Amino acid sequence: MTAFSTPQGARAAFRAGHVAPTAGMAPGFTQCNLIALPRDWAFDFLLFAQRNPRPCPVLDVTEPGSIRTVLAPDADLRRDVPLYRIWRDGVMVEETADASAAWDSQPDLVAFLIGCSFTFETPLRQAGIEIRHIAQGCNVPMYLTNRPCRPAGRLQGPMVVSMRPIPADRVAEAAVISGRYPGVHGAPVHIGCPEALGIADLARPDFGDAVEMRPGEVPVFWACGVTPQAALMASRPPFAITHAPGHMFLTDTPDHQWQV
Amino acid sequence: MTAFSTPQGARAAFRAGHVAPTAGMAPGFTQCNLIALPRDWAFDFLLFAQRNPRPCPVLDVTEPGSIRTVLAPDADLRRDVPLYRIWRDGVMVEETADASAAWDSQPDLVAFLIGCSFTFETPLRQAGIEIRHIAQGCNVPMYLTNRPCRPAGRLQGPMVVSMRPIPADRVAEAAVISGRYPGVHGAPVHIGCPEALGIADLARPDFGDAVEMRPGEVPVFWACGVTPQAALMASRPPFAITHAPGHMFLTDTPDHQWQV
Repeated sequence: MTAFSTPQGARAAFRAGHVAPTAGMAPGFTQCNLIALPRDWAFDFLLFAQRNPRPCPVLDVTEPGSIRTVLAPDADLRRDVPLYRIWRDGVMVEETADASAAWDSQPDLVAFLIGCSFTFETPLRQAGIEIRHIAQGCNVPMYLTNRPCRPAGRLQGPMVVSMRPIPADRVAEAAVISGRYPGVHGAPVHIGCPEALGIADLARPDFGDAVEMRPGEVPVFWACGVTPQAALMASRPPFAITHAPGHMFLTDTPDHQWQV
Repeated sequence: MTAFSTPQGARAAFRAGHVAPTAGMAPGFTQCNLIALPRDWAFDFLLFAQRNPRPCPVLDVTEPGSIRTVLAPDADLRRDVPLYRIWRDGVMVEETADASAAWDSQPDLVAFLIGCSFTFETPLRQAGIEIRHIAQGCNVPMYLTNRPCRPAGRLQGPMVVSMRPIPADRVAEAAVISGRYPGVHGAPVHIGCPEALGIADLARPDFGDAVEMRPGEVPVFWACGVTPQAALMASRPPFAITHAPGHMFLTDTPDHQWQV
């Protein structure tokens, strides 16, 4: 039992300044992507998420100006993510472990908490499927694709995917297990053939770390909650706060809540 | 083969003035609830839907002022629903088979198309489960409940449910089959005990028609897309257009798209 075996312990560590990718932490509890935007952009983003539910399954939306979410009532959204990114006009201007100053500089941020594929890694591991980035102790590899999201208002951009190498004889099972969790990205969007997604080299991910691919393994791609950050780059809203890829917000909500 | 066996044929009949409840029509194609609100209310409604996904699963949102939806590209949302309701300040002021004049009186209506439980009636019937309101040729019974929705912005109100009598030995199967379709309300929210939902008399539904309950049957309740109309009554936005309960918008989208 370490501080990172419960969401409350992990959040306390992050609030105290610990920085690390969160895959494998607090198994059984839902992890979330974060994007906070000015209220003026909230409808555009919520519509973007509705139109792109595979990369952007919305689990909660905060009240304008609030730092609280029903998914973890005692959490402070400004400080409890291990690493944040601050964005101005579509450019990432700062990475910080404490977003309080940036958050408080805005009068009416609306935060969106978006399901994360780390959630279904727990049932995949329970089924005996190795999650390579957990085994290697690094961040999950993520890639920009050539698949445009359906635009909404002022927001558009490409879909981002996460990738896990899966032995060929376990790929179908990985698809079925993750498919039971549509609220946290669900089944893979693409299996094999990275070049068909516009991914030239699996060893050079756009976000996170490269992982080892072994003979007999297939690259399996799931829609990824970093997609909103690609939309920020493409659409350039004046201000945003997000998590840093792989450094998620840990909620008190059990994973089984998202199982169909 | 009648005009009502395809969504295109049924919409043409409705556009020509035919008025009827749509349960059982165009089997295999998704039916939708409709609510159109001024752009100023669109974020509140989309957030209300996100916070209440069982009664309000959003399948499409139109561009402000548009009468088109991706779910049925050649449809005219102002005329292709068999019966509309026009609302002012939370009061239903008109029922009409053609909402063109009301729609065109507003500069920027945003229409929300919401999944309907008629969609999973097809797989229920394929499993040999009788749908009583289809057998009786009437509208499905719907009830206001004592369960408040989670509010969002200026919108709040109680959950509305639809009810189908199911033989006790088929209730579990009905729950499992409908549960595969979370995008169109999914599994029942309540099985048996109508009084616990605040329903005093099943023979007096708040919307639609009463149906026969036979010995050995259990009343099974699903979250209903008339819930937005209860929110209109409770929250009083200045203007809205909805379908009349049970008189749905028929899309060209196959039901299996919503199956998990």
